[in-house]
Amino acid sequence: MEFQHLVPVKIIFGQGKIKETGKLCKNLGRKAVVVTGKSSAKQSKALESLMTSLSSEDISIVLYSEVDGEPDVFMVDRGVALIKEENCDMVIGLGGGSALDVAKTMAMIAVHGGSAQDYFGAQANQKLLSQNGLPFIAIPTTAGTASEVTRNAVIKNRKNGLKQSIYADNMFAKIAIVDPELTITAPPKVTAEAGMDAFTHALESYLSIKANPLSEALSYKAIALIFNSLEAAVRNGSNIEARENMALGSLIAGISFGNVGLGLCHGISPALGSIYTVTHGISNAVLLPYILEFNKDVAFEKIAELYCFTDSRRENISTYEKAESVISRIRQLNIQIGIPEKLRMIGVEKEDFSKLVELTFQGRSVYNNPKPVLEADVLKVLEKAY
Amino acid sequence: MEFQHLVPVKIIFGQGKIKETGKLCKNLGRKAVVVTGKSSAKQSKALESLMTSLSSEDISIVLYSEVDGEPDVFMVDRGVALIKEENCDMVIGLGGGSALDVAKTMAMIAVHGGSAQDYFGAQANQKLLSQNGLPFIAIPTTAGTASEVTRNAVIKNRKNGLKQSIYADNMFAKIAIVDPELTITAPPKVTAEAGMDAFTHALESYLSIKANPLSEALSYKAIALIFNSLEAAVRNGSNIEARENMALGSLIAGISFGNVGLGLCHGISPALGSIYTVTHGISNAVLLPYILEFNKDVAFEKIAELYCFTDSRRENISTYEKAESVISRIRQLNIQIGIPEKLRMIGVEKEDFSKLVELTFQGRSVYNNPKPVLEADVLKVLEKAY
Repeated sequence: MEFQHLVPVKIIFGQGKIKETGKLCKNLGRKAVVVTGKSSAKQSKALESLMTSLSSEDISIVLYSEVDGEPDVFMVDRGVALIKEENCDMVIGLGGGSALDVAKTMAMIAVHGGSAQDYFGAQANQKLLSQNGLPFIAIPTTAGTASEVTRNAVIKNRKNGLKQSIYADNMFAKIAIVDPELTITAPPKVTAEAGMDAFTHALESYLSIKANPLSEALSYKAIALIFNSLEAAVRNGSNIEARENMALGSLIAGISFGNVGLGLCHGISPALGSIYTVTHGISNAVLLPYILEFNKDVAFEKIAELYCFTDSRRENISTYEKAESVISRIRQLNIQIGIPEKLRMIGVEKEDFSKLVELTFQGRSVYNNPKPVLEADVLKVLEKAY
Repeated sequence: MEFQHLVPVKIIFGQGKIKETGKLCKNLGRKAVVVTGKSSAKQSKALESLMTSLSSEDISIVLYSEVDGEPDVFMVDRGVALIKEENCDMVIGLGGGSALDVAKTMAMIAVHGGSAQDYFGAQANQKLLSQNGLPFIAIPTTAGTASEVTRNAVIKNRKNGLKQSIYADNMFAKIAIVDPELTITAPPKVTAEAGMDAFTHALESYLSIKANPLSEALSYKAIALIFNSLEAAVRNGSNIEARENMALGSLIAGISFGNVGLGLCHGISPALGSIYTVTHGISNAVLLPYILEFNKDVAFEKIAELYCFTDSRRENISTYEKAESVISRIRQLNIQIGIPEKLRMIGVEKEDFSKLVELTFQGRSVYNNPKPVLEADVLKVLEKAY
């Protein structure tokens, strides 16, 4: 057994913690650019809490609320220009995965110069992002991407139009403030999709070929938390206990998958996101049961260990049957939270399958899948899920 | 629920990983002081592997092998003087908890100046250790203290002769290289004592009043790994699977307790260490069953969840009986690995009890114990354990 594990993020978890942001970052900088989505942060009053907290520590604020839809190179570059103009010395991301990924990348590019476009593949060429970025503070308002604890940002590449990663060991947030209250205003659809993204992180990291006892303990806990809370959080958004468990499940899944990677679902999903206007959460959610079916013959023992989280209490069934029961329970969960059963229901078209297969192999996730994946396998999964 | 979690250490785990030290730290410094015990590191050939690996990356080496017995202020200060004389820019600790704690403190004092004596209570006065220390690389050769992933060093205070902590958020190692092969030469007694220290970390963090779902998942995994491997590692030191699980269990317990603290066992244990020449491991080991007995009435449900790790498979027993069975299994484990049953067998004397009670309340651990602790309680525990 051998593995690496790195999460150099100070995690602050708890209801109302956003109000401590000022105190937490007063030694990190004096002028913060706050990166957020066009409307969501305002609605949730999170932005107001954040502003008040920063002001009380005399930290100046520049607002960059231009993150709209899936993040691209332009959004990052405009943000970096603003940092320069305003002489900001710290970046605070407040929002879902898009806002956090844009903020995370801005903090790095502001130090290294040029355009975000120059940094795809930075991990392979470590010289590209060798310095620490500006201090970056991540405040998620959804329970899903776990960008607050990963070294990764998914940005649309300007040249090829694909959703690709910019990542480096020094891209981690300095502080992650995970305040479950901020997720309360997320509508059921967002809660469901982000939640299934987190669930997919937990499951795929659990089954990753790079999984180790440390990551497995984390993934397993995240699976438990999400299994038991996602439906409740979707049904009643103000159920704070469910929201708390979802925020925690997403966070813990992130600590795991950020170190051991994901699998085929996260191979196909960004491919779908590159071609169609579908959220990352919904494409993961639709695909997940089919991916588990595909992996079942090699991973059924590990999947069966999740049987205790299902409602089924059948005695004397085989390990394989337990695994099947788990997958069927996940299919049922999807239905309960309003996720469509098939890819065609979210706009996917059969004529794009070969392109989707090609794109799937451009990411890293497919190589961490527990069952080795051939092009023909991706095609089969797409056909079944169609 | 609210909590903080921080472990900004790059963890490299695996057999033979010590050989990659040079490659891993080549960007951190050019001249390393290697801090190690007087004999152990040499015997295990670990030092040789380390030297070779550093030399191959042209990193110069200054050896500081003066760590002998429990670390004190003098050992740290002499090491810091050596760093200055030799212009070292990086500190590598290779050894058990003592060597790592001395190295960890040296790396901080070399930057902040003065003597280690000046920094007890630094966490309360954050200005004292406000800067980053020299890059510190931790390479444990025992599976026990988890100093490689904590922000803490236990050093004997020159003024009062007590074993006390120096700790600060920026005292973490930059890299922890956890190579289970290095533990193979540890003799059974060291394996047993260090192993019970790790086991106590896992159990006390699991039961800590600061425990949260993230830390619990980690503590629980650590308990499982150690429960299933400690006896095997003591019985046959070259059982690499057992060594691997012990190294991992100790590491994972450290990630947990470093964030949520410990309990009464780690309150009394340093008190014993301040008065007698007993290792930290053995005092923990002797005390642990008595501490669990003391905590049983408030913590029996959590203790009972460890029942699956015992050999007992009695059906239809109550939760309370399960907890009792767990404690009895731990008592049995102690016997199997040669730990004495009573404090008087390790030299403790009754006339010191009131002093021990007093010292117990000087540390932080006692305040994280699941059951609130009064002075009379400590006395009772000492009497039962005597």
